[in-house]
Amino acid sequence: MGQPLSTPTRCLMKISARNQFKGKVIEVTKGATTAHVKLDIGGAIVTASITNEAVDDLRLEVGKPAYAVVKASDIMIAVD
Amino acid sequence: MGQPLSTPTRCLMKISARNQFKGKVIEVTKGATTAHVKLDIGGAIVTASITNEAVDDLRLEVGKPAYAVVKASDIMIAVD
Amino acid sequence: MGQPLSTPTRCLMKISARNQFKGKVIEVTKGATTAHVKLDIGGAIVTASITNEAVDDLRLEVGKPAYAVVKASDIMIAVD
Amino acid sequence: MGQPLSTPTRCLMKISARNQFKGKVIEVTKGATTAHVKLDIGGAIVTASITNEAVDDLRLEVGKPAYAVVKASDIMIAVD
Amino acid sequence: MGQPLSTPTRCLMKISARNQFKGKVIEVTKGATTAHVKLDIGGAIVTASITNEAVDDLRLEVGKPAYAVVKASDIMIAVD
Amino acid sequence: MGQPLSTPTRCLMKISARNQFKGKVIEVTKGATTAHVKLDIGGAIVTASITNEAVDDLRLEVGKPAYAVVKASDIMIAVD
Repeated sequence: MGQPLSTPTRCLMKISARNQFKGKVIEVTKGATTAHVKLDIGGAIVTASITNEAVDDLRLEVGKPAYAVVKASDIMIAVD
Repeated sequence: MGQPLSTPTRCLMKISARNQFKGKVIEVTKGATTAHVKLDIGGAIVTASITNEAVDDLRLEVGKPAYAVVKASDIMIAVD
Repeated sequence: MGQPLSTPTRCLMKISARNQFKGKVIEVTKGATTAHVKLDIGGAIVTASITNEAVDDLRLEVGKPAYAVVKASDIMIAVD
Repeated sequence: MGQPLSTPTRCLMKISARNQFKGKVIEVTKGATTAHVKLDIGGAIVTASITNEAVDDLRLEVGKPAYAVVKASDIMIAVD
Repeated sequence: MGQPLSTPTRCLMKISARNQFKGKVIEVTKGATTAHVKLDIGGAIVTASITNEAVDDLRLEVGKPAYAVVKASDIMIAVD
Repeated sequence: MGQPLSTPTRCLMKISARNQFKGKVIEVTKGATTAHVKLDIGGAIVTASITNEAVDDLRLEVGKPAYAVVKASDIMIAVD
């Protein structure tokens, strides 16, 4: 209340997922059950496929600050 | 041959995974079967858990350019 | 500080993952790079495979309250 | 034949996924291609995102007994 | 240039995912946001759930040669 | 009783995962916590990363018939 949303010290929850990147929502496309949400994270565009329910629950909308979170076992590496 | 590694037009393979970010390997830790590889992607550190076999096959080592690749359905969104 | 760890109202972060269940850590087995953590969630035993790094970062140890968090797209359904 | 479907000893197949919890279907929402299925597992609500095809194949419907199945590497841990 | 697309030596990109199987697209079903694509891989039918965007980006259509790619940590084992 | 274990009609359990392919175990490599299991499925080699616990529980060993099981949302498509 009255504190900026970005105050990280208020949040006591920590998750094991090793990859957490802060950005801003730039697109929300709801389908019948599944939504695609795009974040701009320092210029890189991240695309997430989540439930419509989660979009509503987190009140995701264009311009809102948000994090992309990914478990280390879901990241692949590629080389040229 | 003689062309820089970063020439993307040489690669004809395209993958459906929506998230592909170029960076550089900064750490490779092999375990008994599973390795952890860290990339620096524009200042953000990405941690991937992959097989030792893949580390060998891709010849991943510190300093090598590499991409982090993630399927959209493996990305979650969080908000403060 | 001085408040019980379980106070949920202090945490402002919300994650899109639809499945979040509170329990208690009953076993932590660290491997070379990957750890297995078991939670007792209302009598059901949940087994998670996460990085050793996450175990250290979250200071997971037997007896500590913790949540199992799973993205909806990672849950399968089976019937007899 | 003549035995109730729920007799577990009839099923000889075992899967490596460490997490298998029995409950009952409480909601099935089909989208264009992807369905969301909710199970009540001992009072906890589990949400799964699976294909419409799987819903038809398993004849999932409200009230039917079913299991939520999750691979250990898809479970994250969070702490307050 | 002038070489058949299927020449694998033209592709310099390698991905850590241990499982890559060549087949042919036999069905593409687009939903509101999520598509289901089936490949015939040596007689076995593989079903993938990917974004509509990826279907467009890769120009997937019936009859087109394509690979199914799966990370080792996403494969489970079952026995009778 | 008295029927061979491989009779598939004895198994009443069905799982939503769309991809289930029968093969034979050709390699089991246990690490500290995580094992890599290779199946030969009609000549294609499939590599799975599962827990040591699952290897023991399913008594996986070279020569044993087994299935690779993959959720549709964990399969990616690539094209040349």
